[in-house]
Amino acid sequence: MKTRDRILQASLQLFNECGEPRITTNHIADELDISPGNLYYHFRNKDEIIALLFQQFEKRMETALQAPQRRVPNMEDMWLYLHLVFENIWEYRFLYHDLDNILGRNRKLRTHFRRILERKVATAATICQGLADAGIMTATAEEIAALAQNIAVVATYWLNFQGIRASGSTQDSDSAHLALGVYQVLSLVAPFLNGEAQELLRQLSREYLS
Amino acid sequence: MKTRDRILQASLQLFNECGEPRITTNHIADELDISPGNLYYHFRNKDEIIALLFQQFEKRMETALQAPQRRVPNMEDMWLYLHLVFENIWEYRFLYHDLDNILGRNRKLRTHFRRILERKVATAATICQGLADAGIMTATAEEIAALAQNIAVVATYWLNFQGIRASGSTQDSDSAHLALGVYQVLSLVAPFLNGEAQELLRQLSREYLS
Repeated sequence: MKTRDRILQASLQLFNECGEPRITTNHIADELDISPGNLYYHFRNKDEIIALLFQQFEKRMETALQAPQRRVPNMEDMWLYLHLVFENIWEYRFLYHDLDNILGRNRKLRTHFRRILERKVATAATICQGLADAGIMTATAEEIAALAQNIAVVATYWLNFQGIRASGSTQDSDSAHLALGVYQVLSLVAPFLNGEAQELLRQLSREYLS
Repeated sequence: MKTRDRILQASLQLFNECGEPRITTNHIADELDISPGNLYYHFRNKDEIIALLFQQFEKRMETALQAPQRRVPNMEDMWLYLHLVFENIWEYRFLYHDLDNILGRNRKLRTHFRRILERKVATAATICQGLADAGIMTATAEEIAALAQNIAVVATYWLNFQGIRASGSTQDSDSAHLALGVYQVLSLVAPFLNGEAQELLRQLSREYLS
């Protein structure tokens, strides 16, 4: 693996584990056992590392947020969508833990992050509309619009919310937060599903949480 | 008004308008046309001002989050609860705009903020259970538990979410975000209400948003 990629990987890990504000470029160089000069040869400063990590995150999020185009979306699309969204948030969780801070420092990241939020809302709405068209869900256009925004809010901030509520407990519980997050978002959708889909969802949720 | 209270009021206004990280104690002294020395006579540093503002916020939030004790909660309690919660968040919005940052710096604030989140979830659950007991709402205990958490997440992070999505547009739209926030939370509750309450809610929501 190239030094540049090793730096990115180590930075991501340290940011996620300790929080981005606590990590300096010296910590990163130390972790990799390279000199600060070597690190600066690849990246001018920490913000440049963050920008690169954000690019990786954005690319993966764009893939996750692609609604199926050639066919009507179904419940499995909803699962896949949520699963990929939460997985990406989890892998780049340092961004979400200090979102205001990181976006406040960098106008470009803010614009890109805004675009990701818009995509989250739009994809959620497309999938819900697909479920409605297929007769799996019963909801008006007004209800779907409000639902799609709530899906995006809960998907975006669930880990922060749980992070504050669970502060003090062990790191282990973090991936449980992730499963709980998917469950919470699905519980937003559930009341609009018809009887059969609702029962299926309830079953899947229980398996997913256990 | 005492100097001490004037300092708190001016700080709150500046923090809300410009963001807490951008405001120094010198800015606050300037705004009040007092010397930095005079400010330091009342507060040792900015964190002490933040701690005092947080105390005010916490006291008001505790009042807002008191579920009615002597009678069964109804739809008006839900409205009142949401209205007061959003109003408080709005008045102390600087806390929410830099939540990770502010809570990361101060362990005590973190503990107190966690308690507020717990109260948000508990009060939402109590009101929903009251609506269910009164036959206004149909929901299982499992559904109410998930719903109460989603209510707390959307109520807590709605302004941040809208802040990122609307960045670039004018400040004026902020109080519209507030009304939209109440609407978004009510749309979480709506699908569980019985027909009549649902229609009433739909009407109220439209009036509230126009």
